[in-house]
Amino acid sequence: MRIIRNIKEMVQAAQKRRLKGDSIGFVPTMGALHAGHLSLIRRCRKENDFTVVSVFVNPIQFSPREDYRKYPRNLIQDARACQKEGVDILFSPVAKNMYPKPFRTFVEVEGLSDTLCGHSRAGHFRGVATVVAKLFQIVQPDIAYFGQKDAQQAIIIRKMVEDLSMPVQIKVMPIVREKDGLAMSSRNQYLNASERKDAVVLRQALNLAKDSVRRQETDASRIIRSMRALIQKKKSAKVDYISIVDFQNLKPLNKIKGKALVALAVWIGKTRLIDNTIVKLKYA
Amino acid sequence: MRIIRNIKEMVQAAQKRRLKGDSIGFVPTMGALHAGHLSLIRRCRKENDFTVVSVFVNPIQFSPREDYRKYPRNLIQDARACQKEGVDILFSPVAKNMYPKPFRTFVEVEGLSDTLCGHSRAGHFRGVATVVAKLFQIVQPDIAYFGQKDAQQAIIIRKMVEDLSMPVQIKVMPIVREKDGLAMSSRNQYLNASERKDAVVLRQALNLAKDSVRRQETDASRIIRSMRALIQKKKSAKVDYISIVDFQNLKPLNKIKGKALVALAVWIGKTRLIDNTIVKLKYA
Repeated sequence: MRIIRNIKEMVQAAQKRRLKGDSIGFVPTMGALHAGHLSLIRRCRKENDFTVVSVFVNPIQFSPREDYRKYPRNLIQDARACQKEGVDILFSPVAKNMYPKPFRTFVEVEGLSDTLCGHSRAGHFRGVATVVAKLFQIVQPDIAYFGQKDAQQAIIIRKMVEDLSMPVQIKVMPIVREKDGLAMSSRNQYLNASERKDAVVLRQALNLAKDSVRRQETDASRIIRSMRALIQKKKSAKVDYISIVDFQNLKPLNKIKGKALVALAVWIGKTRLIDNTIVKLKYA
Repeated sequence: MRIIRNIKEMVQAAQKRRLKGDSIGFVPTMGALHAGHLSLIRRCRKENDFTVVSVFVNPIQFSPREDYRKYPRNLIQDARACQKEGVDILFSPVAKNMYPKPFRTFVEVEGLSDTLCGHSRAGHFRGVATVVAKLFQIVQPDIAYFGQKDAQQAIIIRKMVEDLSMPVQIKVMPIVREKDGLAMSSRNQYLNASERKDAVVLRQALNLAKDSVRRQETDASRIIRSMRALIQKKKSAKVDYISIVDFQNLKPLNKIKGKALVALAVWIGKTRLIDNTIVKLKYA
């Protein structure tokens, strides 16, 4: 496995592969790799001649009050995991090279970026769209893999790729969970033991929503109320948002019909966690 | 020469060429091709294995009050000119395919887009950056050619390419002029005979600036005042703006030192024309 830190070097490596006719699969990450990332990497390896994983904690998707500085970084461990999975290139650029001053160019996906996580994290998805657009220029993938845990991110990236006719296919892989149901996240390592126990409530609340819809409950606000009540029972938990939205355009739904995305963000102590599920009304 | 109107077809044609190892040169235009465009096409042909010219009048770079509808369109004539120049592909997509509804993704180059033409044409350069980013994804050029007449556009595109690490080289070619000095522009055909005569005043004003700097005049506002006075002598002329700015970051200069961009936009009757020149202070 080759580790590349220089942007031009990565462009050249990608171009060389493309010239050979190899397909390039790409898994963009912020590192601190966990089983969720590995599921993407495995799928990528299976479906492409050449696999590139990027590890880059992207400063422009964090607001000043957020956890950019303390976000877990462990390139050596990540490199070991990538090597073990048969990754061809680990691309880990440096922030000051990704964003040389004065950096001026931003990609914005309007109408999808200001709801859900975008509401509590202003500018977050502009940072995400910009870095992914840039990584796509550098890595030139045929297929790029994202996790369903970041559902809104996946929808925004898909829309960006469609709108700008980027020659890359986006694949979104299912959420990987701990045994007790907690969605895998690099931020889970912020949790202390009791918070870790409380954190399972995100999944429990989603299950509650699933059950409600299974019982033909279609009133979104009633479902959200009961989810909120469940979460509030945990001392360390504080709801950031709970939303039930159209799973394509992310518009809030009053009545569930067909497919809907139930998404939530919850503070567990000082750690903000997200999770989501898709619910389907069977006999609409 | 192949004429392609379908986006996917263009992507495939480009990918096929790239696989062959051919270099792709690209000249993006809004059509109504004149000698200025042809100079770009000739340079492109000389420097690349494969030449793509796009003809697309880009709706999102026009404001509602501007001339999108009446902008000159003549694909048959443009195709004839491209064929004669040995262009390989003429790519002319349809607006509703370039911007399928709901179109949500925009590329913005901040800090360079709101001065000069961006001041009088709000949103213009966002539309330009977005369409060029999209065309680059579709055509996948090694080198793209732009005209110095749209100096601000060229600077913004260069910055976008740098910031997003787009694997394309930007080349900017000199302004091509009519015999009397009027810069070639598709919009010149809007002018009636007397307006056409008056239009030469843009170039005369730029020459006046050049002469002033040659005489060691460094006070930008004094130069601008004399340019304005010259232009106001023409009945049909009305200054939109005259600016002397840093030729890289487009910031207005009070004192000229080294290289500066002198740029202006002037209404000649109902036609808005632009022109510019670079001035150099010799013994700074």
